[in-house]
Amino acid sequence: MTKDVITAIEERTSIRKYKKDSVPETIITKILDAARKAPSAGNRQPWKFIVVYNEDVKSKLSDAALKQKFVSSAPVVIVVCAEPETSRKRFGERGENLYCIQDTAAATQNILLAATGYGLGTCWVGAFSESKVKECLELPVSLRPVAMVTVGYPESEEIKRSGRRSLADIVHIIK
Amino acid sequence: MTKDVITAIEERTSIRKYKKDSVPETIITKILDAARKAPSAGNRQPWKFIVVYNEDVKSKLSDAALKQKFVSSAPVVIVVCAEPETSRKRFGERGENLYCIQDTAAATQNILLAATGYGLGTCWVGAFSESKVKECLELPVSLRPVAMVTVGYPESEEIKRSGRRSLADIVHIIK
Repeated sequence: MTKDVITAIEERTSIRKYKKDSVPETIITKILDAARKAPSAGNRQPWKFIVVYNEDVKSKLSDAALKQKFVSSAPVVIVVCAEPETSRKRFGERGENLYCIQDTAAATQNILLAATGYGLGTCWVGAFSESKVKECLELPVSLRPVAMVTVGYPESEEIKRSGRRSLADIVHIIK
Repeated sequence: MTKDVITAIEERTSIRKYKKDSVPETIITKILDAARKAPSAGNRQPWKFIVVYNEDVKSKLSDAALKQKFVSSAPVVIVVCAEPETSRKRFGERGENLYCIQDTAAATQNILLAATGYGLGTCWVGAFSESKVKECLELPVSLRPVAMVTVGYPESEEIKRSGRRSLADIVHIIK
């Protein structure tokens, strides 16, 4: 059993310092299985996941991510890629610019929550040069890297969570 | 306790037939609290959630969603809105066209999973006229509706899950 879903949602926060312990591949597989269970428009599943353990490649990903060093310090980096054409074929411009971004984001959120459920720490990295990531991973033109997720066991038990806007500020009810 | 996170991820599927039972507002509040715990680029939280119980408004949302009748049959419809300008201010075009879409999608996925955790059924609806939704909800220009989520207790215990691409098809490992 993993953590209950509300606990996982509440405990998930951006972790940027990891223990050196490697993450068992069996757990990475379970996390990727969670990713592919995400919903997608028309069930197109317009996604691919590049799982990077290689130190040299992680270092290049770190460079591509505005030199954020914690990226290469993580035992594993999962690069989430969209397949825009898969969504465009069915849904046109809305598929390419909205649905395939949402679908891959839902899959990314599943990665974060499943990892949290297994006691891992993650960080969703969005600030990177897409062209540099494409180059370093030698991605086919069909793939657009949309997120990186760093994965590892959190170094510290003391975890700081970022604040949130109040429900009153973000919710409007129509009865 | 809700369901464990992996179970919630695996059980979540699109539910389009609901019991007439209303959903307690306390549970809707917990689901929205889960939504706001989603990560967002720079912790900008570029989102608002419009919770619709009103039959007339749900009917208009159904019309805006290509007349998909199940939308108005759900006890509750949550319209997830992005605040593109909130992300643009910090991150420019990438904020407006990528991050705020991803952030709201992560929040939407939290809604689906939290609801599943509480035994509710949901459906992520992406096919709708944004201008019609804006009009029927009288949204300010700062908000872009990016998803609707229908929420209710599933009518049937027999739930059909859509298939998934194999892990071999969607995962590439770099060691």
